[in-house]
Amino acid sequence: MNYKMIRFVISWVLKVEGMLMLFPALVGAMYQEKAGFAYLIWGLLCIAAGLILCFRKPSNMEIYSRDGFVCVSLSWVVLGVFGAVPFVITGEIPFYINALFEIVSGFTTTGASILSDVEALSHASLFWRSFSHWIGGMGVLVFILALLPMKGGSVMNLMKAESPGPTVSKFVPRVRGTAKILYQIYLGMTLFTIAALLLSGMKTFDSVTLAMGAAGTGGFAVLNSGCAVYTPLQQWILTIAMIAFGVNFNFYYLMLCKKGKAAISSQEVRAYILIILLAGGVISWNTYPMYHSIGETVRTAFFQVGSIITTTGYSTTDFDLWPELSKCILVMLMFIGACAGSTGGGIKVSRILILLKTVKKELGSIVHPRSIKRIRFDDHPVEHEVLRAINVFLIVYLVIYSFSMLIISIDGFSFETNFTAVAATLNNIGPGLDQVGPTSNFFGYGPVSKLILIFDMLAGRLELFPMLILFYPSTWKKRG
Amino acid sequence: MNYKMIRFVISWVLKVEGMLMLFPALVGAMYQEKAGFAYLIWGLLCIAAGLILCFRKPSNMEIYSRDGFVCVSLSWVVLGVFGAVPFVITGEIPFYINALFEIVSGFTTTGASILSDVEALSHASLFWRSFSHWIGGMGVLVFILALLPMKGGSVMNLMKAESPGPTVSKFVPRVRGTAKILYQIYLGMTLFTIAALLLSGMKTFDSVTLAMGAAGTGGFAVLNSGCAVYTPLQQWILTIAMIAFGVNFNFYYLMLCKKGKAAISSQEVRAYILIILLAGGVISWNTYPMYHSIGETVRTAFFQVGSIITTTGYSTTDFDLWPELSKCILVMLMFIGACAGSTGGGIKVSRILILLKTVKKELGSIVHPRSIKRIRFDDHPVEHEVLRAINVFLIVYLVIYSFSMLIISIDGFSFETNFTAVAATLNNIGPGLDQVGPTSNFFGYGPVSKLILIFDMLAGRLELFPMLILFYPSTWKKRG
Repeated sequence: MNYKMIRFVISWVLKVEGMLMLFPALVGAMYQEKAGFAYLIWGLLCIAAGLILCFRKPSNMEIYSRDGFVCVSLSWVVLGVFGAVPFVITGEIPFYINALFEIVSGFTTTGASILSDVEALSHASLFWRSFSHWIGGMGVLVFILALLPMKGGSVMNLMKAESPGPTVSKFVPRVRGTAKILYQIYLGMTLFTIAALLLSGMKTFDSVTLAMGAAGTGGFAVLNSGCAVYTPLQQWILTIAMIAFGVNFNFYYLMLCKKGKAAISSQEVRAYILIILLAGGVISWNTYPMYHSIGETVRTAFFQVGSIITTTGYSTTDFDLWPELSKCILVMLMFIGACAGSTGGGIKVSRILILLKTVKKELGSIVHPRSIKRIRFDDHPVEHEVLRAINVFLIVYLVIYSFSMLIISIDGFSFETNFTAVAATLNNIGPGLDQVGPTSNFFGYGPVSKLILIFDMLAGRLELFPMLILFYPSTWKKRG
Repeated sequence: MNYKMIRFVISWVLKVEGMLMLFPALVGAMYQEKAGFAYLIWGLLCIAAGLILCFRKPSNMEIYSRDGFVCVSLSWVVLGVFGAVPFVITGEIPFYINALFEIVSGFTTTGASILSDVEALSHASLFWRSFSHWIGGMGVLVFILALLPMKGGSVMNLMKAESPGPTVSKFVPRVRGTAKILYQIYLGMTLFTIAALLLSGMKTFDSVTLAMGAAGTGGFAVLNSGCAVYTPLQQWILTIAMIAFGVNFNFYYLMLCKKGKAAISSQEVRAYILIILLAGGVISWNTYPMYHSIGETVRTAFFQVGSIITTTGYSTTDFDLWPELSKCILVMLMFIGACAGSTGGGIKVSRILILLKTVKKELGSIVHPRSIKRIRFDDHPVEHEVLRAINVFLIVYLVIYSFSMLIISIDGFSFETNFTAVAATLNNIGPGLDQVGPTSNFFGYGPVSKLILIFDMLAGRLELFPMLILFYPSTWKKRG
């Protein structure tokens, strides 16, 4: 293991995180809050620590597969561990594990909270929570890599560990150039959302924070009532923004390159839109008796569907009160998740599509045992290696799911609570059902359960393996 | 499709089922119940129908892969459809779909019931319910194949569709000879269990029916209180019997061949025993405050663990009242299931082991990207084809699970109820939690949900594919 290189990358993570903390410090200054000082001082300390740690550039800048995974997972752990401290300093979240839960939930774009009264937070802290969504959505290392002088192979090994989705997506950023375009699209779309919200009459602070939450598919709100008090127009803007950020960014890239036809023919994007329309339609029909008008029903249904399938987690209604069918649909959307190559979490639409195609192919091979067919996706045959990776992903997913369920069930919450708590964290959604529903929060879980859920959030954001590898003994053995 | 051959096999199923109904008719005669006549008359009608249907032997006795799957699934559907009728004739279960649910639950060795008062049933019907477990445990077609003159290839294609477990088990009966030995072991162990229960002082009727239920890992009891009123000794006998029938029959076969060393070194059997000990231990610790003595706690814990992991479904306590941790462990055992090549259902211990080994191998290949390792099971490398089959099984399992959950959630029961209702039927267990817990039953679900759960029971018993293929359009197309 190239420990020196890991130290070097982590020192950069600290420096960048320290600099990012200057933004909430600035917000604190604008609102004349004392909390701003906490971010200023701690941010400067992080920068100092980073500078000290990277005092000497490692002679060997090479990063191998294993090092890449460890680098990424440790970087994300460090982000959380240091990012949580200001909450404790300001006294807004005095217990450290709660603060850690909150900020990891932020960076991983989960949006699960342990706070029951977010309106009591300072503007600086509210901004830091939402800002962490925006940073986490695109990935921190992708950003740092644009600054670091490294070889192509090493960049690849880091990217591989941090980029979302199966390798089917051709847009997994391979070179610094593509990473830059990605960030430009991301920034542009975020600014566009902020502008739309401002034009609709929303307050500046709310517009900025909510747009950042939608962009990262995070889900932290700035009001205790979530998004319920915003106007219908504002809710529709958020719905469209969330759904847009759940689309494979390859789509926008192709659009920018004027390859609209190729963009529209993407099977994943089509399936994603179809699922949203179907789910929204059925839920509208199912929840109609609960609301005053068709307009309100449809708006609420699609807001929630968009929020859950993109794994954002905003809410305009207490969907825990919905009929079982609608709740069941939401739980399924939690697992499906957004498109690969978007900022959303979950299993990803393309994986689900390929898994379904596997079933169809298998049935076909029973009926016609001699015919040999390959699974095709977007008109290309799917490589055996990709299929294998998806199968392994599914298995690891289920294993982590089961162990998490088992351990957090010690706290004695209901089955529905535990099941959806793991679903909401491992898929980076935010709220679940019952005791972790949209009007409740994760405060009640014990410290051990919270650590498990923190692990799940990180595992979900980094597509399982980087976090798991930390607990695999051979990782820490010397190369034979 | 060889429709003539399918007709021929089904005619045999009817004849055999008619003959099997003479047993409950006899029981009815012994207890001087009118219900006995229903079984006698309907049994004779089934035999007559069978004789008419098989009037002419098909010239082409060949069965291809597709025909085999269709043959097996239709045979099981026919078993259920005709086996349900006596319940309706006797008026004990007047609504046909309920009767169908009950008998399919019997044949698939599920043990899920729609009855709240089983003690109101006639002895004939109680016997028929438990007898269906015993028949279903070993498979009906395996039995019929021993009578039918067919070529080896065709036998294989039928066996493949009816035998439980992944092909890892070398004991999937390939030839008529092995099927015979299997039946002998099965019969011997059942008689042994009956003898043990009789010696412990249990009534003859209870001993016979409970032993048949344990042998088939079914779970229908003959008392409203389940197995709670039996003496501690009798409960321990049942516990051991259930666990013994959940062991891979290969184990007993090797034992009979005096290959004890090979038998004991079976990774699957070891893991199975280990899981039982661990689960029983943790549950004993967790539920200790609920019971009067250590003896009672341990007995109750191990009875329930044995009952659930083997997918039998007997109960001596209302485990729905257990703490969440214990309930969560039970739910996991529902999915793990028994050993492959046993009469139990679920995903099967060997599949779980191979899935876990896949995860370990994957982590290893991240750490050492250049090393190529194959997954080994019982000291043999696992074939790629077996791995693929297990992965596909898992995917199909999850797909059926999700769709079932979605449809039955229309009835508005709680999430826990729906989740465990599907778990209990697809894994052929019987009781679930909450509204389908051990003191409740499946009566409350609507007809559509019941049909879905009937499908799940059949799919679970036949390892998913035979039932699914019925709904695959190309199955019914002419061979191109």
